[in-house]
Amino acid sequence: MKMLEERIRKDGIVREGNVLKVDSFINHQMDIGLFEEMAKEWKRLFAGKPINKILTIEASGIGIAAIAAREFGVPVVFAKKSMSINLDQDNYRTQIQSYTHGKIYEVIVSKKFLTKEDHILIIDDFLANGCALMGLLDLVRSAGAAVEGIGIAIEKGFQRGGELIRKQGIQLESLAIVESMNENGEIVFR
Amino acid sequence: MKMLEERIRKDGIVREGNVLKVDSFINHQMDIGLFEEMAKEWKRLFAGKPINKILTIEASGIGIAAIAAREFGVPVVFAKKSMSINLDQDNYRTQIQSYTHGKIYEVIVSKKFLTKEDHILIIDDFLANGCALMGLLDLVRSAGAAVEGIGIAIEKGFQRGGELIRKQGIQLESLAIVESMNENGEIVFR
Repeated sequence: MKMLEERIRKDGIVREGNVLKVDSFINHQMDIGLFEEMAKEWKRLFAGKPINKILTIEASGIGIAAIAAREFGVPVVFAKKSMSINLDQDNYRTQIQSYTHGKIYEVIVSKKFLTKEDHILIIDDFLANGCALMGLLDLVRSAGAAVEGIGIAIEKGFQRGGELIRKQGIQLESLAIVESMNENGEIVFR
Repeated sequence: MKMLEERIRKDGIVREGNVLKVDSFINHQMDIGLFEEMAKEWKRLFAGKPINKILTIEASGIGIAAIAAREFGVPVVFAKKSMSINLDQDNYRTQIQSYTHGKIYEVIVSKKFLTKEDHILIIDDFLANGCALMGLLDLVRSAGAAVEGIGIAIEKGFQRGGELIRKQGIQLESLAIVESMNENGEIVFR
């Protein structure tokens, strides 16, 4: 998606260790106008799929998922990363390794909000090694729900996540795929 | 706001310890259509204020804030609860006690995204004792930004947060204020 690639070139910052910071428009400050354009693009790419719910994971996926859900006219469910006293005990659970935070999270979705009747579109901001997505797919399968597709804002094409997901035959639509980048700010898109 | 009160009566669940569960439409599964109506109501209530940015806190405020920001035509900044390796070192910080999770969080906003030029509307899902809001106000004041108002979905009117905020002369607009509730599911709104 041209608009997103141009924005990443303009405002993205490449840091040591293959870190791409997009915190000025995606995952700390959120450009809602950009999210609306992304939502429209996913609506076009997943046209005809019987999507009735969007699933994401806290925290930085939630804003993008909310705007996408408005475009699709469906609710969002976000998987939670820790056990709150307000959560039901009746949950699907999985574990996700976060390289960004350097720890393993338990991730939870209430069984009330993910069922075998559901046709799920998964939305998230980043795809790198695929750990978060594998966790979300695990939750969807535990519920017996159908995965209709996955929409990602930015995929790091030089890491393995995208390949692992596509091998499973899932429709994965990443709006910008970074093929390579360096600390001089040069970013090549696929 | 009638529509939100009716929804709370219909789908909210009162649990021991003054817990009001609204996870089927607000803070686990999110009803985006409802959020749009809430956003329109805040737009009406804060009409004429020079709001240029919405501030919220992860995770459950983000969806509501994103839909509200679309209505106001401004970006969202969400305060983060933990130190990620991707965060700038140049942050405003404060501490917030969470009763729901039973711990104290360090809460962080990058100095890049909160400045003395900003006119902030704070949005969050719940107001009870006010700890989270006091933390967000602390961040806004650290930056020298102006607080134009606070929009809350559900205020627990029997706890002290609302009174503490209103005493400061801040325009606080809670769309539903629960005056009392009990485990038989009886909920009285102010």
